[in-house]
Amino acid sequence: MKKTLPFNEQKISEFVDKTKTPFYLYYEEGIKDRIRTLQDAFSWADFKEFFAVKATPNPHILSIVKEEGCGVDCSSMAELCLAERTGFKQEDILFTSNDTPLEEYEKALSLGAILNLDDVGHIEILKDRLYIPELVSIRYNPGGDFGNYIIGNLKESKFGVSKKDLYKGFETLQKYGAKKFGIHIMAVSNELNPQNHIKVAEMMFNLMLEINKTLGIDFDFVDLGGGYGIPYKPDENELDIFYISNEIKKLYEQIILKNGLKPPKIYMEHGRYITGPNGYLITRVLHIKNSYKKYAGIDANSANLLRPAMYKAYHHITVLNKSIENKEAEIYDVVGSLCENNDKLAEDRLLPKLEVGDILIFHDVGAHGHAMGFNYNGKLRSAEYLLTTEQSFKLIRRAETLKDYFATLSFESKD
Amino acid sequence: MKKTLPFNEQKISEFVDKTKTPFYLYYEEGIKDRIRTLQDAFSWADFKEFFAVKATPNPHILSIVKEEGCGVDCSSMAELCLAERTGFKQEDILFTSNDTPLEEYEKALSLGAILNLDDVGHIEILKDRLYIPELVSIRYNPGGDFGNYIIGNLKESKFGVSKKDLYKGFETLQKYGAKKFGIHIMAVSNELNPQNHIKVAEMMFNLMLEINKTLGIDFDFVDLGGGYGIPYKPDENELDIFYISNEIKKLYEQIILKNGLKPPKIYMEHGRYITGPNGYLITRVLHIKNSYKKYAGIDANSANLLRPAMYKAYHHITVLNKSIENKEAEIYDVVGSLCENNDKLAEDRLLPKLEVGDILIFHDVGAHGHAMGFNYNGKLRSAEYLLTTEQSFKLIRRAETLKDYFATLSFESKD
Repeated sequence: MKKTLPFNEQKISEFVDKTKTPFYLYYEEGIKDRIRTLQDAFSWADFKEFFAVKATPNPHILSIVKEEGCGVDCSSMAELCLAERTGFKQEDILFTSNDTPLEEYEKALSLGAILNLDDVGHIEILKDRLYIPELVSIRYNPGGDFGNYIIGNLKESKFGVSKKDLYKGFETLQKYGAKKFGIHIMAVSNELNPQNHIKVAEMMFNLMLEINKTLGIDFDFVDLGGGYGIPYKPDENELDIFYISNEIKKLYEQIILKNGLKPPKIYMEHGRYITGPNGYLITRVLHIKNSYKKYAGIDANSANLLRPAMYKAYHHITVLNKSIENKEAEIYDVVGSLCENNDKLAEDRLLPKLEVGDILIFHDVGAHGHAMGFNYNGKLRSAEYLLTTEQSFKLIRRAETLKDYFATLSFESKD
Repeated sequence: MKKTLPFNEQKISEFVDKTKTPFYLYYEEGIKDRIRTLQDAFSWADFKEFFAVKATPNPHILSIVKEEGCGVDCSSMAELCLAERTGFKQEDILFTSNDTPLEEYEKALSLGAILNLDDVGHIEILKDRLYIPELVSIRYNPGGDFGNYIIGNLKESKFGVSKKDLYKGFETLQKYGAKKFGIHIMAVSNELNPQNHIKVAEMMFNLMLEINKTLGIDFDFVDLGGGYGIPYKPDENELDIFYISNEIKKLYEQIILKNGLKPPKIYMEHGRYITGPNGYLITRVLHIKNSYKKYAGIDANSANLLRPAMYKAYHHITVLNKSIENKEAEIYDVVGSLCENNDKLAEDRLLPKLEVGDILIFHDVGAHGHAMGFNYNGKLRSAEYLLTTEQSFKLIRRAETLKDYFATLSFESKD
């Protein structure tokens, strides 16, 4: 998929000229488009997307998601508070945690959020220390036959419960008075093969039928998880979610409806699919260095975008106002100033010949980009801006300052 | 090396009972011991350790290091400010940066810090925009014959300059009026083989002789970098730094002194070697989960200790008041609550049979531990305590709060 920019190069140049780099820029219209496409694809079902807050934990992004009719998927106290402060309520909040501290369950219940339990052991804790809500979900881990290149063999995954425990869990929940049930899976991540998404849905529908026959449960919802991939590389293709949806629809009719089950809602919890392609990291070249390789030193570093160092992730780069077609091209390692060997945001990348001052735009960083930033080496996390539907640039998170960096420290008077 | 604790288990149990877990605990006496041992080993030379701030960027730790006569090695604006606020001055600050923004050079010069240049291109920038200080150092990258399992092939390293550029750099600095010179290398990291440290010193001494003959430079100092390894695993041995020092001494006499060079100071910039074994992460078991594997869910996660997820690093675990010898043992994956597949702080680890409430102590996290923490998933970084020489527990960094987490955000009024 050819990597393009959703904004006019001149417009962004003018904005960059008056703005401290590096910064993140999100594209509101694009976020809305992705959500609407997803909702459109699944309009045959009682469908709801719960945006995975961890991907882009910014209230202004969450507000867009909310306006478009989505819920949120939270997995920590901070994410629950973020959802609350953005105005999400009750069953618009799904709490998919693991190894959960009691106070997070307490908070989730106080918000009326849907609890999605990661282990049957948590049922007794809820019963003894808090209460069992009317609607509860359990996260299923099918084991080794599912999973993908990111998630790996699900038998090595800490998440979810085996089939035996799933049964035990629902039985216990019934006994303890739960009335409505959900079932959840997250078996693939950043998956571009439609068959792997369809396969997961088929397995879940069959499982729901089986549980219905055994325990008599008509599920309120099935949460098929997130995991729709995005084409990070120009030679990858956009996932055809209408094809996926259509295949899932056939399976839903054949397995769920034909067998007389009450039609469950279909929930999903995409993060990357919604915001991933709609976030850009905008950074400036500070130095060109020629040693054993050619280096473009930029004013962003792994603290601003950890995915290349952590996962060897590829993020496409556009050089503002320079295209490879028109310019002499060179192979660069694009590096930051972190005092760490793996601080390379791109390796052996063919780019137009670069000069100090050039603006580099990293693509597809809208999810798990700014969110994964750290302060290693005393590096500060950048500001975030939104290019609004009205084509204005809106600051949606200020840059960190040294004062923020020092906030948890005390200094003794010296000398 | 058998992993022991520097404190009485009862004393730490009492402290844990009244303290919110997880937290970091540093051991002042141990930090002092490591510094004194290092200084003792190199007492034959005009030796100075510049503690690598990035390892443990806490002013209370830096104060200990300062009292023991060390300088600091900084590589960012925040680290320079931290050094300044801890009372380090002038040539007690070494500024070893890369891809350096101008304002950081400006700050370093204003503090009178020693500049250690990562590229010859920076010389012109200093001359044109600021000034060339009297004493300057250049970072050398010898290329492929050096490096180790962490640093990798140095021809792929963004750091330092080739020999050709090293010559060019010193010539230019001489021309621009620099009077005193340093030379720097950082070729190995966490290296437990003494020969690899000795080999680096030999290469550097020969290089200094060669440069002396060509450019007439008598170096003020040689910075041999950091990189002394620590035995993370119980079957690894402590590095014999007296052996290393003695071998380096022979080479110093043979290459530097016998050839009539003015004796250069020897600088080092260890971080891990000093604080690594003297920091502990103390965390509590929240849940035991049995699915396809046995999981111990703790109240720390990768946000508190990223090295296992990032580098597959091993950190030894002691279970407070339980030893494997006396108890039934089990194999666990020790996991946190991060919504991320790689959030495993230990994999397939044999531990005494665990129960909810047990206290796990992670060893050797004093360097690059808390410092690498992030806020992914809305996770908060923990407090840091110091077990002082007087055997008291002193808070040296408060835990982050939700208020800190939300500090850079603005919320629009909703509903």
